[in-house]
Amino acid sequence: MPQDDAFGWIDAHHERRLAAGLVRTLRPRSADAPLVDLAGNDYLGLTRHPEVTEAAAAAAREWGAGATGSRLVTGSTALHARLEAELAAFCGFEAALVFSSGYTANLAAVTALAGPAGGVDGALLVSDEGNHASLIDGCRLARAEKAIVPHADPDAVRKALAAHAGRALAVTDSVFSVDGDAAPLTALAAACREHGAALLVDDAHGLGVLGEGGRGAVHAAGLAGAPDVVATVTLSKSLGSQGGAVLGPARVIRHLVSNARTFIFDTGLAPAAAGAALAALAVLRREPQRAARVREIAAGLHGRFVAAGFEAVRPDAAVVSVRAPSPEAAVRWAADCREAGFAVGCFRPPSVPDGISRLRLTARADLSDAQVTAAADAIVRTAPAA
Amino acid sequence: MPQDDAFGWIDAHHERRLAAGLVRTLRPRSADAPLVDLAGNDYLGLTRHPEVTEAAAAAAREWGAGATGSRLVTGSTALHARLEAELAAFCGFEAALVFSSGYTANLAAVTALAGPAGGVDGALLVSDEGNHASLIDGCRLARAEKAIVPHADPDAVRKALAAHAGRALAVTDSVFSVDGDAAPLTALAAACREHGAALLVDDAHGLGVLGEGGRGAVHAAGLAGAPDVVATVTLSKSLGSQGGAVLGPARVIRHLVSNARTFIFDTGLAPAAAGAALAALAVLRREPQRAARVREIAAGLHGRFVAAGFEAVRPDAAVVSVRAPSPEAAVRWAADCREAGFAVGCFRPPSVPDGISRLRLTARADLSDAQVTAAADAIVRTAPAA
Repeated sequence: MPQDDAFGWIDAHHERRLAAGLVRTLRPRSADAPLVDLAGNDYLGLTRHPEVTEAAAAAAREWGAGATGSRLVTGSTALHARLEAELAAFCGFEAALVFSSGYTANLAAVTALAGPAGGVDGALLVSDEGNHASLIDGCRLARAEKAIVPHADPDAVRKALAAHAGRALAVTDSVFSVDGDAAPLTALAAACREHGAALLVDDAHGLGVLGEGGRGAVHAAGLAGAPDVVATVTLSKSLGSQGGAVLGPARVIRHLVSNARTFIFDTGLAPAAAGAALAALAVLRREPQRAARVREIAAGLHGRFVAAGFEAVRPDAAVVSVRAPSPEAAVRWAADCREAGFAVGCFRPPSVPDGISRLRLTARADLSDAQVTAAADAIVRTAPAA
Repeated sequence: MPQDDAFGWIDAHHERRLAAGLVRTLRPRSADAPLVDLAGNDYLGLTRHPEVTEAAAAAAREWGAGATGSRLVTGSTALHARLEAELAAFCGFEAALVFSSGYTANLAAVTALAGPAGGVDGALLVSDEGNHASLIDGCRLARAEKAIVPHADPDAVRKALAAHAGRALAVTDSVFSVDGDAAPLTALAAACREHGAALLVDDAHGLGVLGEGGRGAVHAAGLAGAPDVVATVTLSKSLGSQGGAVLGPARVIRHLVSNARTFIFDTGLAPAAAGAALAALAVLRREPQRAARVREIAAGLHGRFVAAGFEAVRPDAAVVSVRAPSPEAAVRWAADCREAGFAVGCFRPPSVPDGISRLRLTARADLSDAQVTAAADAIVRTAPAA
């Protein structure tokens, strides 16, 4: 390798990815973009809600723009403590711990609960093959044995647990990000309990959308507050802010405080983000119908797509996924929708575990019926030939 | 294991850690805490600067409380693009990419540059044993060969590189978080160039403190903008906000956009945090003397401690570290300082790689001489017997 070109390999890699249609480019949006957004994760339409943005502004003024340090040093404010208490109470858990992102919350939960931890053997990690990247990276980081099991398959989890003698932790998304389908949480919890294993559920796409008043998929499954169940959530989807949280028994949360590297060694969540999430929770408590509205819109979009002959998974929450014949076709389809005034997501390799490209739509509680109809019209009209 | 106690192991683990004095508890602070802060990382005193907090408030109002999605979907705003351009220009790099935290920025840089990436072999990672947890976790996550080398030892890096045939990436903090000592960047870069290796520097504690007008340690070493050097920085220390960034050649940044998992699969940084960091950069450009003031205060504290007979490493930036005889003594010392009105950090196992407990102080540009003197008086007065 030439000594003056340590990153020369990147160009060759880039050319190959470009030829395969796999290169991404950023497309910064303006503050007043005229597109109707069916691509973001602001499911409840709260990120621009005046109560939420004013709470962000007020928190920055009262507490400063940053947390100033690790949560263990100077980065814990009374605002963080209040958010943790509110999140735990709303979702039905004993305690909660807030992180700077959902990604770091998942890394923390998986690694700290998998161990090994001074004198305690590592757990077997049983992980759904469709899990989010942050859970996968948590499993990779954990110094523990792993079993990757077929998607949404409680029997496979049961078999993996039965073949293992020590402690174990099953790990799953509640709603899978790519296709929007839900995990069989009740059956997974039963499989875990048969074998004394713990269950960790990433409820990023469930909070605000599923369960009574948007309390999430874990709450809907009757598992919130169970002694053997831990959930993670994000503050950046339904709650319109930034950050993540782990919810669980108090002893689990206490364990994370002293043992989770992405908690101990990361700066605490910015006060503005904590304040915004608290305000969004308050709106959701007052207007629980937002959760039902999201689900109604997602179901309506799916109905239109099935009628149009698309291959679309029945949505269990806010994500509606439609298959495209190729990465190129997906990119073109999304561009045509954008041209028509609608921002839609486009998932393609390597962001999709099965290599299948998709148009990915997200329902938003504050869309009007007319907007939803117009969006569906545009998506159907611009569809590529099958 | 009893089937109803999947987390029972946590209690036994907790008891052992408690007995060893290693359990942490959160101590949420109030908005008007009367303590003088010598524990946080708000080195320039900007997190409560009115221009910074008003910029956070304005960004939340204009853009919403959250980015609403991955940077690749809806999470890139013109504000993110502006922050990236400003950071790159200020620090002297071709391009920059902003993340939701410094932790995820480091995970991204290490994993995406180590590879392996479609058709490209993985690089050897040569990592200083004193590196920050986020760099260590990046190395653990990377599917690459690793060589952990002694602290701040360019010859050890040279030897590791010489023993390796393929491409390589040396990884180091610029200023080490625990003792506040600086890495020998010039010698490290020379060792890398002899062997065609790339150099990745985490400048989290250098930005705003070292180099001309606070442009950082990489800039000070004349390495900013070099084709074989990548830096990471945090927005949560000198810039008083939240988030992190990777700075480097445009092709490296382009590579991260398409390949770094913690970029692709994380929600974008909240607009309030991006706006606050931009405002802090503007203040730093206008008032470059803040960087010199931090270093002056750190040197002054160190002088007092040496005069008092403490074992303290000469600070190269804002962090001043003083050894304590035991974890318990460190905790008691920090508590006594707090009692006297000064918040100071207390680092102890497992947060310190060498197992030595320390009082850890951070200089802040907006402390008055009288405050610094009073703080040093209190720290000397409450010191444990050696």
